[in-house]
Amino acid sequence: MNEENFITEIGGGVCAAGGVRAAAVTAGIKESGRPDMALIEFDPPAKAAGVFTRNLVCAAPVVLCRERVSKGPLRAVLVNSGIANAYTGKAGLDAAYRLCREVAGRLGCTEEEVVMSSTGLIGGPLPVEMMEAALGGLIDSLSSEGGTPAAEAIMTTDTRPKEFAVSVDLSGGAVRIGGMSKGAGMIAPDMATMLAYVATDAALSADTMAPMLRAAADASFNCITIDGDTSTNDTVILAATGASGVRVEGKEALGRFEAGLKRVCIELALAIVRDGEGVTKVVQIRVEGAASGEDARRAARSIAESLLVKTAINGCLPNWGRILAAAGYSGAHLDPDRMSLRFDDIEVVKEGAPVEAPGASLGEVLEKPEYTVTLDLGAGSAGAAIWTTDLSAEYVRINADYRT
Amino acid sequence: MNEENFITEIGGGVCAAGGVRAAAVTAGIKESGRPDMALIEFDPPAKAAGVFTRNLVCAAPVVLCRERVSKGPLRAVLVNSGIANAYTGKAGLDAAYRLCREVAGRLGCTEEEVVMSSTGLIGGPLPVEMMEAALGGLIDSLSSEGGTPAAEAIMTTDTRPKEFAVSVDLSGGAVRIGGMSKGAGMIAPDMATMLAYVATDAALSADTMAPMLRAAADASFNCITIDGDTSTNDTVILAATGASGVRVEGKEALGRFEAGLKRVCIELALAIVRDGEGVTKVVQIRVEGAASGEDARRAARSIAESLLVKTAINGCLPNWGRILAAAGYSGAHLDPDRMSLRFDDIEVVKEGAPVEAPGASLGEVLEKPEYTVTLDLGAGSAGAAIWTTDLSAEYVRINADYRT
Repeated sequence: MNEENFITEIGGGVCAAGGVRAAAVTAGIKESGRPDMALIEFDPPAKAAGVFTRNLVCAAPVVLCRERVSKGPLRAVLVNSGIANAYTGKAGLDAAYRLCREVAGRLGCTEEEVVMSSTGLIGGPLPVEMMEAALGGLIDSLSSEGGTPAAEAIMTTDTRPKEFAVSVDLSGGAVRIGGMSKGAGMIAPDMATMLAYVATDAALSADTMAPMLRAAADASFNCITIDGDTSTNDTVILAATGASGVRVEGKEALGRFEAGLKRVCIELALAIVRDGEGVTKVVQIRVEGAASGEDARRAARSIAESLLVKTAINGCLPNWGRILAAAGYSGAHLDPDRMSLRFDDIEVVKEGAPVEAPGASLGEVLEKPEYTVTLDLGAGSAGAAIWTTDLSAEYVRINADYRT
Repeated sequence: MNEENFITEIGGGVCAAGGVRAAAVTAGIKESGRPDMALIEFDPPAKAAGVFTRNLVCAAPVVLCRERVSKGPLRAVLVNSGIANAYTGKAGLDAAYRLCREVAGRLGCTEEEVVMSSTGLIGGPLPVEMMEAALGGLIDSLSSEGGTPAAEAIMTTDTRPKEFAVSVDLSGGAVRIGGMSKGAGMIAPDMATMLAYVATDAALSADTMAPMLRAAADASFNCITIDGDTSTNDTVILAATGASGVRVEGKEALGRFEAGLKRVCIELALAIVRDGEGVTKVVQIRVEGAASGEDARRAARSIAESLLVKTAINGCLPNWGRILAAAGYSGAHLDPDRMSLRFDDIEVVKEGAPVEAPGASLGEVLEKPEYTVTLDLGAGSAGAAIWTTDLSAEYVRINADYRT
């Protein structure tokens, strides 16, 4: 059955699902005076799962989330932008626990039911008193219309809020899945954090949710690369309130829900890539014919992170040699004499030989804002895909200078 | 004993050692009309060792060199610039063998004693007839003064020839080691090839030479990164004519020779980095306190290749968070609470805590064209060092546009 038949895009962002409210406030963390604190509230409290940065230098709020998210239930997620609370030692951990305790007191739940995330500059302390002073107003403004304000308050140098939501038809009724995200990489300075929060009103067991979120994140957030850097604060949280009363059970329902979750995660991930500062192109790198899935991912990532490939994309250059070379040093098994390469549908290398006249429309593909590069390694039947961006002079300017 | 006492810098480049002549010619491969073919001749024929690209997509001349270099003796190395002879299939291999056979016929040696390298655009065929027509003039102009012309003829977008030579005092007499190299990375388009040729008049056994060259390359050419891309054509060849009559035997002599060889390789490698287009800074990344050498190299490479670190270097920014984060996701074991970081002698992080006032001279260090970043992982006692460059908007412009 086609996805289109049971998945429908809807509005509402992270508040699309029943039982979810959100709000935003300006606590004063950001010098700009823009909103810098958001709260997402789940009532009934939600079952939850999380995926976090693998960076060993991880921020205090990630340590806190790792402890609490999988235990659940989750009553609220507090998010601040402006300061990352990373590399702040025990004082940073104390600040995170204190803020969660304060939110719990005001919501009337246990402190273990509240988690938090931070994004912004590394190394500085959270202004805890200033944030506490803003909590009352934040909680008072919780609303099911609060998705967009919350998505705006978690932005750092993002240029627009990122939200997406769907309704998924199951045999027992419709469930909703909605989320918000903020940008990774290509953002200045030291703010390369990717955050995403997805909420559903489906009734799910926590045991089902963890592997499902891992798979969805692997197919979305873990398939985008802007500059290859992994933040200290990366966090993806999935929360299920069960407010729809529809239980997700059985193979078909689980399959449909997973398809809907993946769709939301992919849209939230692509929104991050498209909003990368300095980004003019989003290119999907597909590797086929690999000896293993690991090989396919390795080759795709090597191509997606090659500076020579990324600058060629920026310049609309058909320099396929850079792509083959990046696959060649990736460590993946490949057969140079059997490799084939396409830009969208235009074949430029066929079984090891350059195509003499690849077609006049090659230039048109290279000028497009989004296209797909497909490389067949000629070594097997496994595949992988990853989204990358061009590398522009603008990216360098943004990241080399934040003082002007 | 101090290196300075037995190693003396001398002139002459690759022809510094006895028994080595070189020459250059304009065959017409480059549209620019600049010299594009060089020959290095060894008489007496030289024992040799080579280190080549690990890229699975490797060029025809690398296949030929792998076959012949370690067998030796080597009578000549032919090098052309302008076309890489990479991804050219059987026709490319045939062209390389044919050119070596032609050189051998004219020099009166066996074809197995001649090897070749190519650097330039990937995918196009070598103009074999044009190159053969130029061989007579090339061989006629062989001279012990030919080092610099040869170093110029192997340039692609390098802005200057790269040569370095030393004399090494051994108990049996002095031996000379001289070499030339050409640039890697940061050079447009698809010309990211690193080539280096080092010749000595010391008498060495081929068995000694291979591990010695591997160690010297690991401490020099394999310790530089500009854009992390590995070329299809990378080649380093060491040739020993023995013309000095001085045999390198015994621990002290071998140690001194190896120090001299390493010095030449490091200078040739640094010359490549310093000449990278768009490069304004050369920074040595030193990792100390690692649990293993592999961990140290992994962390150093991760930092050296981070776009956020490289743009910070470009902008003279003291963003140490980017450096710690790059170490954090490198896969190396580390203890965030015991990490320390210095820019030259200025400590900015000490055992896990940011230094409050790192000293006014931090800005001076960051403005220097060359400096050292030292990161202690706090996890052991192993170390590694790698040279990297800044990432400039100029780099992107060069690599995104070769049509203007």
